[in-house]
Amino acid sequence: MGGQPSFDVGDCNMIEIGIVGGTGYTGAELLRLLARHPEADLRFITSRSEAGVRACDLFPNLRGITDLAFSVPDPKVLADCDLVFFATPNGTAMQMVPDLLAAGVKVIDLAADFRLADAAAWERWYGMPHACPDLLASAVYGLPELHRERIKRARLVANPGCYPTAVSLGLLPLIEAGLVASERLIADAKSGVSGAGRKASVNALMGEVGESFKAYAIPGHRHLPEIEQVLGSIAQRPVGLTFVPHLLPMIRGIEATLYATLLDAGTGEDLQQLFEGRYSGEDFVDILPPGSHPETRSVRGVNTCRIAVHQPGGKDVVVVSSVIDNLVKGAAGQAVQNMNIMFGLAESLALDAVALLP
Amino acid sequence: MGGQPSFDVGDCNMIEIGIVGGTGYTGAELLRLLARHPEADLRFITSRSEAGVRACDLFPNLRGITDLAFSVPDPKVLADCDLVFFATPNGTAMQMVPDLLAAGVKVIDLAADFRLADAAAWERWYGMPHACPDLLASAVYGLPELHRERIKRARLVANPGCYPTAVSLGLLPLIEAGLVASERLIADAKSGVSGAGRKASVNALMGEVGESFKAYAIPGHRHLPEIEQVLGSIAQRPVGLTFVPHLLPMIRGIEATLYATLLDAGTGEDLQQLFEGRYSGEDFVDILPPGSHPETRSVRGVNTCRIAVHQPGGKDVVVVSSVIDNLVKGAAGQAVQNMNIMFGLAESLALDAVALLP
Amino acid sequence: MGGQPSFDVGDCNMIEIGIVGGTGYTGAELLRLLARHPEADLRFITSRSEAGVRACDLFPNLRGITDLAFSVPDPKVLADCDLVFFATPNGTAMQMVPDLLAAGVKVIDLAADFRLADAAAWERWYGMPHACPDLLASAVYGLPELHRERIKRARLVANPGCYPTAVSLGLLPLIEAGLVASERLIADAKSGVSGAGRKASVNALMGEVGESFKAYAIPGHRHLPEIEQVLGSIAQRPVGLTFVPHLLPMIRGIEATLYATLLDAGTGEDLQQLFEGRYSGEDFVDILPPGSHPETRSVRGVNTCRIAVHQPGGKDVVVVSSVIDNLVKGAAGQAVQNMNIMFGLAESLALDAVALLP
Amino acid sequence: MGGQPSFDVGDCNMIEIGIVGGTGYTGAELLRLLARHPEADLRFITSRSEAGVRACDLFPNLRGITDLAFSVPDPKVLADCDLVFFATPNGTAMQMVPDLLAAGVKVIDLAADFRLADAAAWERWYGMPHACPDLLASAVYGLPELHRERIKRARLVANPGCYPTAVSLGLLPLIEAGLVASERLIADAKSGVSGAGRKASVNALMGEVGESFKAYAIPGHRHLPEIEQVLGSIAQRPVGLTFVPHLLPMIRGIEATLYATLLDAGTGEDLQQLFEGRYSGEDFVDILPPGSHPETRSVRGVNTCRIAVHQPGGKDVVVVSSVIDNLVKGAAGQAVQNMNIMFGLAESLALDAVALLP
Repeated sequence: MGGQPSFDVGDCNMIEIGIVGGTGYTGAELLRLLARHPEADLRFITSRSEAGVRACDLFPNLRGITDLAFSVPDPKVLADCDLVFFATPNGTAMQMVPDLLAAGVKVIDLAADFRLADAAAWERWYGMPHACPDLLASAVYGLPELHRERIKRARLVANPGCYPTAVSLGLLPLIEAGLVASERLIADAKSGVSGAGRKASVNALMGEVGESFKAYAIPGHRHLPEIEQVLGSIAQRPVGLTFVPHLLPMIRGIEATLYATLLDAGTGEDLQQLFEGRYSGEDFVDILPPGSHPETRSVRGVNTCRIAVHQPGGKDVVVVSSVIDNLVKGAAGQAVQNMNIMFGLAESLALDAVALLP
Repeated sequence: MGGQPSFDVGDCNMIEIGIVGGTGYTGAELLRLLARHPEADLRFITSRSEAGVRACDLFPNLRGITDLAFSVPDPKVLADCDLVFFATPNGTAMQMVPDLLAAGVKVIDLAADFRLADAAAWERWYGMPHACPDLLASAVYGLPELHRERIKRARLVANPGCYPTAVSLGLLPLIEAGLVASERLIADAKSGVSGAGRKASVNALMGEVGESFKAYAIPGHRHLPEIEQVLGSIAQRPVGLTFVPHLLPMIRGIEATLYATLLDAGTGEDLQQLFEGRYSGEDFVDILPPGSHPETRSVRGVNTCRIAVHQPGGKDVVVVSSVIDNLVKGAAGQAVQNMNIMFGLAESLALDAVALLP
Repeated sequence: MGGQPSFDVGDCNMIEIGIVGGTGYTGAELLRLLARHPEADLRFITSRSEAGVRACDLFPNLRGITDLAFSVPDPKVLADCDLVFFATPNGTAMQMVPDLLAAGVKVIDLAADFRLADAAAWERWYGMPHACPDLLASAVYGLPELHRERIKRARLVANPGCYPTAVSLGLLPLIEAGLVASERLIADAKSGVSGAGRKASVNALMGEVGESFKAYAIPGHRHLPEIEQVLGSIAQRPVGLTFVPHLLPMIRGIEATLYATLLDAGTGEDLQQLFEGRYSGEDFVDILPPGSHPETRSVRGVNTCRIAVHQPGGKDVVVVSSVIDNLVKGAAGQAVQNMNIMFGLAESLALDAVALLP
Repeated sequence: MGGQPSFDVGDCNMIEIGIVGGTGYTGAELLRLLARHPEADLRFITSRSEAGVRACDLFPNLRGITDLAFSVPDPKVLADCDLVFFATPNGTAMQMVPDLLAAGVKVIDLAADFRLADAAAWERWYGMPHACPDLLASAVYGLPELHRERIKRARLVANPGCYPTAVSLGLLPLIEAGLVASERLIADAKSGVSGAGRKASVNALMGEVGESFKAYAIPGHRHLPEIEQVLGSIAQRPVGLTFVPHLLPMIRGIEATLYATLLDAGTGEDLQQLFEGRYSGEDFVDILPPGSHPETRSVRGVNTCRIAVHQPGGKDVVVVSSVIDNLVKGAAGQAVQNMNIMFGLAESLALDAVALLP
């Protein structure tokens, strides 16, 4: 193929970026998005296990796009970056983030290390001690539609989980407006298998998960406390959520069907206006017309969350359907959105692709 | 291939059977199941559009199994059967059933014509006048786990819808025991695309529904009044259900995740015992051990409903996950189960296959 | 969503474009690609059946991207365009193209009307008389890697079929170099279901084509004479091809495995160099390293053709595996590539996305 | 669920059976088939890694069918069986088979240990020394349609590979009749992912293989020498085959499209008669009518191989399309067929299910 690698090298005005842990789907998606970002100068991508391997040999869609090879993470090189993304398993970022912050590097963690403000809760749900609980208070939960101003000033952003993004955006207007019983929320969420990551496992073999469907983690999923924290901060008191995730026989996409009880059964039109008003001006939230049902394919590969709100039979139960691409708005896309905000760029820079349909 | 067609012809002790409307997936599945039924003498299968075509030319899995060709329905021939299955679009069976019953033929309708006891409700949801509302009272709703004794004596069985089967079996023990707030039930159900039938349509093209997921019919689905009727008859008062169906990018299988509020939050073990006790002795309902999550593939091709019951966090919300194969327990398999009951045969006759996994 | 529709309106320096027949997958893909084309001013998209409907109501990925609605084709409006794409069924473009060319409009036909130079052959394979056989000689077959110079000057481009693109690019270097027995070629090709289009049909239902695989059209497929024409023009004598297409249980992607007999068994390295040399400088053909196997997902959504060449066991059979996205390099992407060439733009303009993987 | 486990225990006339290595898809499929075999008394199923785990906890389709738990293989217990199936990785069976044969136990190996008659070739392709090369001569290659009489008398059957079954059955009549150039055969084969087994691996994750398609092992696949051996034994001289396997984004099914050059181009009707004649009387080979294209779904879950033969354009290339379920006729089903033959039972015993379609 003709042409040059797309990542510019050495332009001193660009943002110098490192990615720690780039062999998973989230890392691959960051590479895909940053490859077309006009202000991103991707300096390195690390992986201990794949050090020396070119990213495009692991992810053939990157052939002709970048010649970067994975490297062993080097603290000195990391410290020279303007921004480091962590696309690592839970528990890795917290080992390296204190030094990076001390060196003046900004950090966006796509794992869960800094999502929960309560260190004890984090340790209970994630099964390990937290390496830097003192940083939790200064980490900003990177949901731009809720915390844009804080993200602008943040040095450490905890990029939200995929389910929490879809669920929170769908319930946020109702909770903010105080319209529903916040102690009795239900989120029935379904995710494509890319959410399980790219690691050797029997449970995610196509022979195991193709042509089948199931709920999982009904007794409790790590995204439950995260969602309850987000919604609780909006409600300004603890909320009660029943959260059931399910595994879809497809690769990308999350749909969350949300059920809430209206305190005072209003009209469907009011809810529609509520949602449209709340998200007017937001580039990445699209409220569908009344009577709609969003499809996950309508957001395949893009950073948009599409939402429909219903009030079936005019009764007191409001039903919201919210869809995202779990790897984009649910991970790498939202991370780039946060980066754009943190560095004063147009929020949609490099995030203006059209979803791939069919 | 060697061997003889599997359908016996002319054995005077066998049940003489006709299928009206056999070109859809439900008809194909009836053919598959009856082909191995030792007491079934399938005499004919009708289709106006495909008259003269052999069933095995439409459904190549039937090659070597049956040489039957579709024929135009003939009232005289129908009247000579012991049993007629209707696998027709809604509104067809009701035109022919009165004459068949008058001729002494037993009928199992796999469509919706006789599912709702209230003719006015039927006409509202199905958008046409009912041709024989006087028969509705004598039709038996064919959910054997609820109405086995009535089915034994029935001459006209309304075979339940697919969603209603999965949802009703999952909620039945809770409603019967009076443990949950029956005015505030939620059923979040997901179905494979075979539930949409086998007719030319853009909406069910693989290009439209593959690798995507969505809710549909949130404002109201025809199975809502059917489920409310079943559950209401158990509760002996009207129930309130929010029912949201979804379309899965796969072919066979329904999973329903059911949410109910305990009137008095009990223990998980009690619920487990309740479900196991309710369905002990049932051949086609399998209560999984505590902490389980049933997969739709575990019932692929078989008449079993597998159910798990949870009480997340020990709170007052009970979560039930219920799976069936929509074409078997949700349609043709349950119809054969009803036939076995109506004719005094072993209930599991011809229904003892092992699910195809993977 | 914030922001303005992406299609610029009324910039007098931009290329004014119309799309005739925009309700299929090819039309949708043209919309997706042109939406991000900086020189394209899409004026209208026609559909008789969907006139008045907004494109984004049919294709929800276009919400927030374009507000264009389908319109009834109007010859006068068409005649004001710089360029008209036909994304219509076979036999439609040939009715309208003569008038458009007379009005000075350039045309790219994504259907088959102008692909075969021999009108009699066209009529035999397509089963209808040709409306303007006199135009066939001046139509340029739009495979840029073969006919770039002619495309630059073309007023009417016949955009290649999907299979012919994958097969021709894979065999071209071997035929050009005269290395293989051109009377004994085999192309075993496999396509995702989007190749069958977006029209109501039982045969493309997910229930019919999901989780299954088959060959089709073994006795003869319309793309056979097209491929034989392309390869014959390279070989400068008739070639003999056995072409067997197959239907894949997925949406996008074509893989063609090609078998040819070397006239004089050379070494694998020579073939690798031959392919790399032939396509050096080509933006949209990527020759993989020796020993590779291209995956269709590596080109999902992009205009690239990836090719690997093998000589198993060092014997005299050369095996080529060639993959494209049937809707991009096999249809709309190649059409945009041809447009860029015809209008003197950078050939990769609006075609530089990164493939969506996973 | 009611009822008793289906496996009879202790009936002294039944065949006492052990399965070594039952945690893969082949082992699971053997369990599924033997569960309904009236003459099979399954005594144990071994797995070192899963010892103590019930099979139905790994494969939930077996709930209510068998309560057998995996056990550590015990030579003494093995030696008491009438028949032992090996569903182990390559290289395991050859360690245990000599002792079993010495103890009078019959063996069917579903792995590759005894498929190649040439120990040196085996060691080259499988990368390890053979533990009992002296047994290779007495092992019978278990393709019943070719070796039925030898299988009847066999004590050790090498169950054929999945690709070799589909390819050999498709080419066998042409080779036997000496109609085609046997030094120039091509097999373009495609398999569902269950062929890759059920072991933790990145390469078979749904995120890696879903919605994508590729060729693999073009330089050489272990099934190549196996097929060449089978066809060579028919041709009574070495054959030349180009064999290219591909990975399908689905679970079950193999389709092989086979290309051969007629030595003397005959008529299509003759080839049809040739195939029908060769397989008349065979329960598990179905020759489709002229002009047909077999679908893998038509054999899902059953032991049938469906074949269509074509002569496109009446030229000298014959094209055969052959489909099987790789886990049934390509593995466990053929093994049960071989067992039935070895023990003098009806060949189709427990193999008479109807394929699951859709």
